[in-house]
Amino acid sequence: MATDQHDGTQHTGNPPRSSPVPQDTKGITTKKNDDMAEWYGQVVTKSELADYAPIRGFMVIRPVGYAIWQRVQDELDAKIEKIGVRNAYFPFLIPESFFRREAEHAKGFSPEVAWIESKPGDQERYAVRPTSETIMYDSYSRWVRSWRDLPMRINQWCNIVRWEVQDTKIFLRTREFLWQEGHCVYETERECHKETLKYLEFYRQVAEELLAVPVMLGKKTQKEKFAGAKTTYAIESLMPDGKALQMGTSHDLGQGFAKSFGISFLGKDGTTQTPWQNSWGFSTRLLGAMVMTHSDDKGLVLPPRAAENKVVVVPIIFDDTKESTLAKAREVTKALKRFNPILDDRDGYSAGWKFNDSELRGVPLRVEIGPKDIAKEQVVLVRRDTGEKRFVPAAQLVDEVKRELDAMQAALFERAKAFLQSCIVTAGDWNSFVAAMDSKRLALAPHCGEGECETEIKDVTKGVTTRCIPFKGDKPTLGAVCIRCGKKAKYNVYFGRAY
Amino acid sequence: MATDQHDGTQHTGNPPRSSPVPQDTKGITTKKNDDMAEWYGQVVTKSELADYAPIRGFMVIRPVGYAIWQRVQDELDAKIEKIGVRNAYFPFLIPESFFRREAEHAKGFSPEVAWIESKPGDQERYAVRPTSETIMYDSYSRWVRSWRDLPMRINQWCNIVRWEVQDTKIFLRTREFLWQEGHCVYETERECHKETLKYLEFYRQVAEELLAVPVMLGKKTQKEKFAGAKTTYAIESLMPDGKALQMGTSHDLGQGFAKSFGISFLGKDGTTQTPWQNSWGFSTRLLGAMVMTHSDDKGLVLPPRAAENKVVVVPIIFDDTKESTLAKAREVTKALKRFNPILDDRDGYSAGWKFNDSELRGVPLRVEIGPKDIAKEQVVLVRRDTGEKRFVPAAQLVDEVKRELDAMQAALFERAKAFLQSCIVTAGDWNSFVAAMDSKRLALAPHCGEGECETEIKDVTKGVTTRCIPFKGDKPTLGAVCIRCGKKAKYNVYFGRAY
Repeated sequence: MATDQHDGTQHTGNPPRSSPVPQDTKGITTKKNDDMAEWYGQVVTKSELADYAPIRGFMVIRPVGYAIWQRVQDELDAKIEKIGVRNAYFPFLIPESFFRREAEHAKGFSPEVAWIESKPGDQERYAVRPTSETIMYDSYSRWVRSWRDLPMRINQWCNIVRWEVQDTKIFLRTREFLWQEGHCVYETERECHKETLKYLEFYRQVAEELLAVPVMLGKKTQKEKFAGAKTTYAIESLMPDGKALQMGTSHDLGQGFAKSFGISFLGKDGTTQTPWQNSWGFSTRLLGAMVMTHSDDKGLVLPPRAAENKVVVVPIIFDDTKESTLAKAREVTKALKRFNPILDDRDGYSAGWKFNDSELRGVPLRVEIGPKDIAKEQVVLVRRDTGEKRFVPAAQLVDEVKRELDAMQAALFERAKAFLQSCIVTAGDWNSFVAAMDSKRLALAPHCGEGECETEIKDVTKGVTTRCIPFKGDKPTLGAVCIRCGKKAKYNVYFGRAY
Repeated sequence: MATDQHDGTQHTGNPPRSSPVPQDTKGITTKKNDDMAEWYGQVVTKSELADYAPIRGFMVIRPVGYAIWQRVQDELDAKIEKIGVRNAYFPFLIPESFFRREAEHAKGFSPEVAWIESKPGDQERYAVRPTSETIMYDSYSRWVRSWRDLPMRINQWCNIVRWEVQDTKIFLRTREFLWQEGHCVYETERECHKETLKYLEFYRQVAEELLAVPVMLGKKTQKEKFAGAKTTYAIESLMPDGKALQMGTSHDLGQGFAKSFGISFLGKDGTTQTPWQNSWGFSTRLLGAMVMTHSDDKGLVLPPRAAENKVVVVPIIFDDTKESTLAKAREVTKALKRFNPILDDRDGYSAGWKFNDSELRGVPLRVEIGPKDIAKEQVVLVRRDTGEKRFVPAAQLVDEVKRELDAMQAALFERAKAFLQSCIVTAGDWNSFVAAMDSKRLALAPHCGEGECETEIKDVTKGVTTRCIPFKGDKPTLGAVCIRCGKKAKYNVYFGRAY
């Protein structure tokens, strides 16, 4: 590898790559459509995005995956910084008494909490944070004093623990994951509400524009909202196996937590007032959605914007032209520096082997260069998503690479969006609803809004839940009735089976 | 504040600032030399770098402090990335059985470990990571296969828990802190050793060049080395209260962990070999050292390179010239954009009050502008460290600000370095050694190298420990004897009282 600084070859600024996957386990051995769970596990681990940890339900995020997470962080940080959110860090432990101050919140999280063994002299039991509202708002109660302190917008990037009893799956559901949680305090309800939706919009942008994963935006039902929130908004998507995935949530907390934690401020009018709050979070689960949405039977497919190395350069080596081909490949690699290219000049591997290897790892674009190409002053570009091969004049290389990468980013999103749209069914009655669920789709259906009715639907369908009430079209048709109970419909809501 | 986007004033890109410290608790009420512990606590909390958490021994890192930590992260990341280190993330829990595989390691950390309460069905007890060698090397044993995988260089930024029984102090000693830990694997002992020292040198650069905290580099004695390491190297400094502070360590692990965790690789020669490893870490403790070293009776003093906002612009307001002065102040703020300036245009506070406020918060440079200055086409620059006031032609503002910031960065380091050097005493015998310790200095003294003798010195002096064996001059003079036991000296080593 050109990335090894100790072998005397030109250093291209790439991080070192690990050795090739051993031949005996090479490649993905299951097709995406045959066994998606097995396929997913292979793609994630063989592409070296992540690995299983020696503790059940935990994962190791390897450098390739972590680099994408850092990209997600940079993208969101840039957006939230602009509107005045600042990063901070709070303790990873939550005193049990804090949980109890917000009854609904405590009830919602209790089953999944991991506790620390008490130490001699401990007055209190401590939970590892499943979310940080309570520990943060205790500090807020001391920091917020007057209207001058508001809005107060703080975010933290940290690890979170929710001791899932369900089956776990790398990125999508693990007992520990990484996330960010933003927690803001406002003078007015209106401002709070407005920004709650703004953070949701940022999530949409990161999911769609960086990871090329199309989402639906909407409001959670009262039954599915965050424990302690007034209203929860979410971005939701549908994975290729027909399972819905909640990818980020933004909660309008109203004044509930502020009252429980004694946060108040001196208003401009001199009176003591209770502020309004929101909280919002998204996690490494996003990476799972990205893998699931785009990848194929050959391995990982990465949206170019998310990929650390956007290009791999593979020299086609023949004994008699080895040196001149390698020299040209180095030159091309250098010219493509802005795309953080990998030069795969490893000895002892065939070009075909290298093609498979870079496809497994999801490098968006491959540049092939052989003696014939050099003679014709051209290079070969091969796109990871389509496998399409194009001969491009060497002189136009940089422009063409940029064009292909942009086109691939757009194509991945459009393809996924078309799939999502094709899976949305409008269901007016129970039979068409059940049919939609059986065919692994999302159903937009009128519902009465009662929690008991939602529970009944979940029970009889063995797991179907409401996903979100769309912002547009949440009003049911005049006279529409609930698909389950037949009472007057309150709204149209998406139903699906979730991860 | 100009930073409030809702008040119609010009937005300068600054994050929102909290409201002024209430008058009744305004300013630091204790002098640095009178009660350093109390003074330190006030500086850290009143400048809003950090706060006490509602859990004993824990801290909250507030946005002002976290921004400095992010600067430290960026600075180190840039250095380690260049030599091929990549970031990743491993589980925060360590199975108890992993600890036990490296006996010395387990022994060293056991007293401080926090454990998770067992869940039904748990086969094993889990510790919250006090360091991650064992959990990471378990993965390494699967990832390292051949010489092609080496060197493998992985780093993680994460939270760490060490349940201190000693008194805690924000940043300097807390039960949870943030750090990075790098863990590398090499083919050869030589390469491993060379890079172990390279990471130490990076730590020196970050401490001295970013935080302006001078350090001594050296080797820990066998008694003070990291549990499980062959050799530990450290950067050490001396705080103004005469206490030594270890600020970063780099451990040459030899092959001990590799053997315990079954890490091996296929060498170039076709044989199975055991690799060599190092690990290296530094933490948010660095921020404590920075505060302690530079700050004064007025509050925080920040080295300009570490400060988020390097400049505060304070308009001197008179009723009749208010608008023109504010306009000029905005113009100046805009011109200084690259220094991320704060425009303190708050109504209802006097200029003097604002001066005190920005001094408390440690803004490196103050720019004052009043109607007289406008008339003379000048501004007033006031340096936080010296209080020195200079009149500068408005036309030279940007250059002068840059010059002053650079000068301040250098001056803080030089002053601290002179202090450190003035506190190093060469002690040839027990009496001069005790005198050095009593006068709160560091003593460079010959020592026999025996752990029992170190323990005895610690006991009789009530806490003095060896800090490090300097790289240069670690050979004792011919015929020198141990200051305590009188046996033949093995090396010269720094002694001091540590945090």
